[in-house]
Amino acid sequence: MKKPLILIVNDDGINAPGIRKLISIMNDFGEIVVVAPDGPQSGKGHAITIESTIRCDKVIIDDGPQTEYSCSGTPVDCVKLAVNKLITRKPDLCVSGINHGSNSSINVIYSGTMSAAVEGALEGIPSIGFSLLDYSHEADFSEGEKYIREITQSVLDNNLPEGVCLNVNIPKSVDDKKIKGIKVCRQAKANWVEEFDEREDPKGRKYYWLTGKFVNYDKGDDTDERALENHYISVVPVQFDVTAYHAISKLNTIL
Amino acid sequence: MKKPLILIVNDDGINAPGIRKLISIMNDFGEIVVVAPDGPQSGKGHAITIESTIRCDKVIIDDGPQTEYSCSGTPVDCVKLAVNKLITRKPDLCVSGINHGSNSSINVIYSGTMSAAVEGALEGIPSIGFSLLDYSHEADFSEGEKYIREITQSVLDNNLPEGVCLNVNIPKSVDDKKIKGIKVCRQAKANWVEEFDEREDPKGRKYYWLTGKFVNYDKGDDTDERALENHYISVVPVQFDVTAYHAISKLNTIL
Repeated sequence: MKKPLILIVNDDGINAPGIRKLISIMNDFGEIVVVAPDGPQSGKGHAITIESTIRCDKVIIDDGPQTEYSCSGTPVDCVKLAVNKLITRKPDLCVSGINHGSNSSINVIYSGTMSAAVEGALEGIPSIGFSLLDYSHEADFSEGEKYIREITQSVLDNNLPEGVCLNVNIPKSVDDKKIKGIKVCRQAKANWVEEFDEREDPKGRKYYWLTGKFVNYDKGDDTDERALENHYISVVPVQFDVTAYHAISKLNTIL
Repeated sequence: MKKPLILIVNDDGINAPGIRKLISIMNDFGEIVVVAPDGPQSGKGHAITIESTIRCDKVIIDDGPQTEYSCSGTPVDCVKLAVNKLITRKPDLCVSGINHGSNSSINVIYSGTMSAAVEGALEGIPSIGFSLLDYSHEADFSEGEKYIREITQSVLDNNLPEGVCLNVNIPKSVDDKKIKGIKVCRQAKANWVEEFDEREDPKGRKYYWLTGKFVNYDKGDDTDERALENHYISVVPVQFDVTAYHAISKLNTIL
């Protein structure tokens, strides 16, 4: 049997420890092509580069067997370039991450990591985004590894429903609180309560840093936030059909 | 009764004819605050600015009664800044556009215009994105005006279901083919078949322009693409809960 072809992408940049770990895991599953941003692209959502040009160059970063490309574009650009220009056959799997930081609940729509997975699904490729709830560069990706392997093998064996990718979040292991297992969840209703840090530049002109606090309003037991609180890995199936079907009948009465 | 407070944003930039037209229409409906990008931000999806600072300055562009801010950030940054920093009471409505070009079907996830409307909905504000199927700077926004007024009035009168905003696309009027009315639709299953235009810079190094062809695979009569083909304005209710609920039971059997 031919080895599966696996496309790897992320949003923290090709040198981030999270993607290096994911590459080392995926090398056991198949033939690996990495197309990842040349620098941080966090919070880029589903952005694509249409007002400027894109650079994409083959690079060698470590001595693994994978083929790697460093790209000046967004995570979604990376997937598009991979599928349409750099890879001749369609990948059997697209994995994105491992993100440094949570992409649970509403973070899914801001996340470059998850948008790359959604773009993979759009291209008809079974796709998974992996994130660890630890923003630090020195995050420990080892405890989640066993589950990343399990989920990857299951998706390779079973495929995914059409138009659906997976948003996998891994809790941060603290002291004796180990990961208990995997829970399939829905996206929690949560939000960022924004604050802008207003400053003055040396010329006295105002500028802002976006900052904020994450607030979970959702008391449900079936959410990704609840699973993560309870030290489970959360898996949310994510779709790109964003039609609010339940609202159609009401709109037909008022428009 | 207090005049409604209306936030206006777009992704083509504060000087684009589409937003200038929208401002002139909305001035008849309430008190207007414009917070819009200082230049083109098309295709920026739900990107936010977290790796760099944001500028936002009060500007006067024409002699209308509206208050305007020009912002260096993305369309979603504009909404966040407006709601959290620039406006003291919560807007009664957020309108985005009028976009120069279609945001129907899959374009909704790449669109800065629609992401701004989604961000408005996330903030609990009834929100509408308006787009005209004409990319040109000289696009004629006049024929859709009557319908923009109708939809705006209806949303002010009836509100929208929680967590839902509207994606309104207006067909381009050609010769005798006038707009026939409004249809509430679902998002068509369509896609961009990407091509990358590969070039060489003066030093002989490769670079790419993202380009592509839009393909509609969806034969349904209830899609936005079908409505637009038939010269109707399409209205798709859009949600930010992207959980693929129909996939949860299958995932529970394989994970």
